[in-house]
Amino acid sequence: MHYAHKKVLITGGLGLIGSHLARRLVAMGAQVTILDALLPGHGGNLFNIRDIQSQVALHLRDIRDPLALDGCIPGQEIVFNLAGQTGHLASMLDPQSDFEINVSGQYLLLETCRRLNPTLRIVFSSTRQIHGRPRYLPLNEDHPVQPMDFNGIHKATGEYYHQLYQRVYGLEVTILRLTNTYGPGMRIMDAGQSFLGHWIRLLLEGVPLPIFGDGGQLRDFNHVDDCVEALLLAGSRPEAVGKVYLLGGSEVVSLLELARRLSGFTSRGGYALIPFPGERKRIDIGSCYGDFSAIANELGWRPKMDLNQGLQMTVDYYGAYSHHYLQRRT
Amino acid sequence: MHYAHKKVLITGGLGLIGSHLARRLVAMGAQVTILDALLPGHGGNLFNIRDIQSQVALHLRDIRDPLALDGCIPGQEIVFNLAGQTGHLASMLDPQSDFEINVSGQYLLLETCRRLNPTLRIVFSSTRQIHGRPRYLPLNEDHPVQPMDFNGIHKATGEYYHQLYQRVYGLEVTILRLTNTYGPGMRIMDAGQSFLGHWIRLLLEGVPLPIFGDGGQLRDFNHVDDCVEALLLAGSRPEAVGKVYLLGGSEVVSLLELARRLSGFTSRGGYALIPFPGERKRIDIGSCYGDFSAIANELGWRPKMDLNQGLQMTVDYYGAYSHHYLQRRT
Repeated sequence: MHYAHKKVLITGGLGLIGSHLARRLVAMGAQVTILDALLPGHGGNLFNIRDIQSQVALHLRDIRDPLALDGCIPGQEIVFNLAGQTGHLASMLDPQSDFEINVSGQYLLLETCRRLNPTLRIVFSSTRQIHGRPRYLPLNEDHPVQPMDFNGIHKATGEYYHQLYQRVYGLEVTILRLTNTYGPGMRIMDAGQSFLGHWIRLLLEGVPLPIFGDGGQLRDFNHVDDCVEALLLAGSRPEAVGKVYLLGGSEVVSLLELARRLSGFTSRGGYALIPFPGERKRIDIGSCYGDFSAIANELGWRPKMDLNQGLQMTVDYYGAYSHHYLQRRT
Repeated sequence: MHYAHKKVLITGGLGLIGSHLARRLVAMGAQVTILDALLPGHGGNLFNIRDIQSQVALHLRDIRDPLALDGCIPGQEIVFNLAGQTGHLASMLDPQSDFEINVSGQYLLLETCRRLNPTLRIVFSSTRQIHGRPRYLPLNEDHPVQPMDFNGIHKATGEYYHQLYQRVYGLEVTILRLTNTYGPGMRIMDAGQSFLGHWIRLLLEGVPLPIFGDGGQLRDFNHVDDCVEALLLAGSRPEAVGKVYLLGGSEVVSLLELARRLSGFTSRGGYALIPFPGERKRIDIGSCYGDFSAIANELGWRPKMDLNQGLQMTVDYYGAYSHHYLQRRT
């Protein structure tokens, strides 16, 4: 009942995670505002909120726009700060855009909160990618921060900014370091945001799933419902303030195993091992999966969705709706 | 002999460290170029190179200026990248400038190297401040990065950028995390760069040295000659490539003890305990000193200057030359 009548802003609210979060919040009676610039190449899609669009306030503006923030932030009680550039390779090809969104934009958002709404609660979606190539597995929150690419560097900087505003200016901040999050509503057009989203597209098109290297890299995955549950806990529980929590999946699988399971859902396509493209190899982090015992012990969160079931549901969703995710915006 | 005839660029070369480094390099027969914008409030001072000005190429331009970098970087063999905003309180009052110099400027420098001179060797002067309030003492390189203020955040980001360009683009990078560095040529006008510099000014003016809190905070200090020795090793030894080294002092002293020693050099002034100003308390890191065993074991560096002797020499220097450091530039 914590969220009933609460005024909640979701930045990046038209993406996979933000839209599911908005739906949950609307169902709980929150007053939801979404700020999303629908940037090309990113995860935002109006189809993701087709069923709740009349029940949220929607601002199609950018977190880099001071006037947009000045208009959205006053009056809010909680901000789920999900807006970001998430593509690793994209960040190497265009460091400047990654930097403007994940560093300058975050600074602007936090400064606006400090100026106009300093008692706000903020949940920031970071990424386990800031840990880079793991020195040990599973990762935990204490693993050194050693980002491999511009996206990891800038997300780490965004975390430090949030922590500074918590410590120095008293904003109530919780940081979640997400792992691979998947589900209905994810970007599938290309591999810019998520290789898994792109695999689902290829699966539906009957194209073999490309696996870089030998496919032995281990990963974990969170279904979007589990991720949303973690966000809701982080935004409501008093003991979460000032904390950083790493999420993790219920199962650790190799990319090869993941491709086998996915391709088992159809009779076509299969998968193919291909050499690592050089530009990806240079920023590859190898095997990576997380120890979520901190958030399990402190907030009682654990991932509930079975990976096979979650993947099946996601593939089924795109079997019905993929055309809404393959229209190229200009 | 490593540096004889080497083409060396020093960014921030008119500051305390850069100017001493330039002098040593000139003496070893290097071809030295200095890039320094002489920004007000920073450490650059032409008086610092009065004896070698005719033997270096001097560019009074900014690392944020792409044309300046395009003009300086080609042809160099080693860059000692010392340019930076170093004031912690200043970074809280003006995060944007700190960010432009310590993040955007560093990115621009590294991009210029990648484009125009990708076999370059770079030594980057970082700070032990990126570790924030120590979880254990002495600090070492493995201590978590948890910066407390904008300056610490942006210097950490600068480190990550340097490491990325090393790993992905093959620049040969060594990072030194400096502790408090002092010596003839440091800024003494105010406490914006170094409280110790300001204390020296107050000492000469007969004003009591202000100690925040109880003065129990422990610190270590490097005389600039020791710091320069570490830079020269970092720029020449093959095993230093790709490494991060923390520096540290030969002695750990409390701020109260430091004030006692300094005020013992004159018969006037003394010192005074005063309450911590709120804006400094919020970003104070408490006691902080470093374990320099990594650079000692790998490169054979250790601080040689006795603290008392180094302080005495520094006070004597300003007794003779303080007027060159107290002229307010517009």
